[in-house]
Amino acid sequence: MNRFVYLDNNATTKITAEIREKIQPYSDLQFGNPSSIYGHGLKVKRAIMEARENCANLVKCDAKNIIFTSGGSESNCSSINSAINQLPNKKKIITTKVEHSSILEYCKLLEKKGYEIVYLDVDKNCNLNVNQLEKEIDDNTSLLSIQFANNEVGAVLLTDKILKQIQKLKTKFDFLFHIDAVQALGKIELDITKLNADFVSFSGHKIHCPKGTGMLYVKDTQNFVPLIAGHQEFGLRGGTENILGIIALGESCKYISSNFEEISIKIKQINEYLETEVLKISNVTINCQKVKRIPNTTSLTFDNALGNQIMFKLDQMGICVSTGSACNSESSEPSYVLTSMKIKNPQNTIRISVDENTTKSQIDYFIEKLKMCI
Amino acid sequence: MNRFVYLDNNATTKITAEIREKIQPYSDLQFGNPSSIYGHGLKVKRAIMEARENCANLVKCDAKNIIFTSGGSESNCSSINSAINQLPNKKKIITTKVEHSSILEYCKLLEKKGYEIVYLDVDKNCNLNVNQLEKEIDDNTSLLSIQFANNEVGAVLLTDKILKQIQKLKTKFDFLFHIDAVQALGKIELDITKLNADFVSFSGHKIHCPKGTGMLYVKDTQNFVPLIAGHQEFGLRGGTENILGIIALGESCKYISSNFEEISIKIKQINEYLETEVLKISNVTINCQKVKRIPNTTSLTFDNALGNQIMFKLDQMGICVSTGSACNSESSEPSYVLTSMKIKNPQNTIRISVDENTTKSQIDYFIEKLKMCI
Repeated sequence: MNRFVYLDNNATTKITAEIREKIQPYSDLQFGNPSSIYGHGLKVKRAIMEARENCANLVKCDAKNIIFTSGGSESNCSSINSAINQLPNKKKIITTKVEHSSILEYCKLLEKKGYEIVYLDVDKNCNLNVNQLEKEIDDNTSLLSIQFANNEVGAVLLTDKILKQIQKLKTKFDFLFHIDAVQALGKIELDITKLNADFVSFSGHKIHCPKGTGMLYVKDTQNFVPLIAGHQEFGLRGGTENILGIIALGESCKYISSNFEEISIKIKQINEYLETEVLKISNVTINCQKVKRIPNTTSLTFDNALGNQIMFKLDQMGICVSTGSACNSESSEPSYVLTSMKIKNPQNTIRISVDENTTKSQIDYFIEKLKMCI
Repeated sequence: MNRFVYLDNNATTKITAEIREKIQPYSDLQFGNPSSIYGHGLKVKRAIMEARENCANLVKCDAKNIIFTSGGSESNCSSINSAINQLPNKKKIITTKVEHSSILEYCKLLEKKGYEIVYLDVDKNCNLNVNQLEKEIDDNTSLLSIQFANNEVGAVLLTDKILKQIQKLKTKFDFLFHIDAVQALGKIELDITKLNADFVSFSGHKIHCPKGTGMLYVKDTQNFVPLIAGHQEFGLRGGTENILGIIALGESCKYISSNFEEISIKIKQINEYLETEVLKISNVTINCQKVKRIPNTTSLTFDNALGNQIMFKLDQMGICVSTGSACNSESSEPSYVLTSMKIKNPQNTIRISVDENTTKSQIDYFIEKLKMCI
């Protein structure tokens, strides 16, 4: 039997034993509806409050500004929806060419409704074209939506310098600012008080929680316009709460808060080991090697081997890597992120994304098999 | 120690041991992203396909017309959102005064944007005012949204007669028809081919699945406009799939399909026993007693006792009942459903909702304690 080596943690992660244990009671005896005002419901309500505190602590904001959603995609679409409803007379949205598909697809829907969408360029290191941003932003812009770090190449788009430039633009123009921080959460320190954002999206299943849970930071809760209506989540997001997901998210955020340094060191060390070993192979390039990246992500482009073929061969040997975002993997086109970056041979690319539990022995196994594939 | 007697299954239900067992592998080793095209992802993708088939079977439609959502509220809001985008020139929506809060709150948001919302009246038995519907519906109407059965009193609003009248209206006017069937699923036979609806909403946690999962039947998938964008769910609903919820929903629908008659008999018998015992108490009325109801729901109004006080006293003795919808329980106002029905003393009402596992001994315990409370 093959070993199972999972190196696709940017697609999704395994639920840890600790989180499974924590959510177990809520899938069994603690099944009350948190909106029910008898004891059986109130216990669950209190557990949600505690989870919200733990989530808010990790990203350094007030719990009242965190709402739970069904995931990163909902958080993203909710932010855009709220922005265009909060500023209904402004018909322009600025985003980038390398955003997650939920942002790009939602913008396409808005284009059909007459909105102007500007998709900012990035260079071959996934650096944002800031000149273009400064040229495009105007009084008709309701929203600027930029991901914190790219899911395929790991590059950090929102460097301190760019965040400062955006802050400056905010003093000139009245627009809302959304950050898709799904891939950054738990991998890079996020301090919402310093991001100057109006909305920040997060996902649970990228940090060892069940799929179908996310959260959204909302700065101005008074003026937020819900995507899903109802009284839950302070009236900002309707629907009976996904208790298992919320409890998991709280537990995961609490764990990351308490162990951030240790997790970071583990990820950094295993990723450095991976990249050192990779660079011993000839005819391969690490994308965005010289720019700031989230520490767990390595995008490799080979001179003479197709990413898809490598991925399928590795799969046969029990190793999971991807050619790009899982959210676009069903397309046979080369990744739009790599195409937008104008790298050579985007179709020759694989993404490896480790987590804090990835071992050297797993990396050795991967490198050995990778050599056989190319 | 008190017994624990849960009689609030319209608020939420307990996850059964069978469902817990079925989802367990997906919270552990089978954690792949269903969009990943390697084996570890494809296994999960196949499990979703199977779940979709089981869900479609229960409501007698094609699997390609079922999309998974985060719950009933999302399904409801998605339907309204799609309707107004499919028919953008029509600015009128017709619904009822007794809909779920997600519908009413979403309609309020649309009123602010200039839409005309007509809230149809019901009588004291929760019968829809069909004359009013026929008078109000016109060429400017994009959507008619009516719940199949009411969550608080159990009354079936969409009787065969009313469904036929709506079918007739559809031949005259070009509007879309949405049914909120959240409280009906599993309790009444639903055959989508006979409902003549464009959208039908369902929720998982009302049928023993985890909270945070639902489904939506969409008749015309070609023209559907997503609320959450992305490639998942045939491009109709973005976001990495809530695997635990979807697997549970598939399993629950399969179980209900195979055991519908047995479940129905159990619910009918225990509910009849409950109502027979209740009627031995004086000064109490069963609401909607003479109209068709979902078989598990009994709404009681007392002549001289407050619903809230009864509920809290019962809670102290380990019994869960509610005063109305959990989704509005934080409000101190009497239920808008009961107020719209213009019943006497709406504040003196409690709702009891059993499931197929409720026992006679639990009902006896409840009746005994209820007598002490009033």
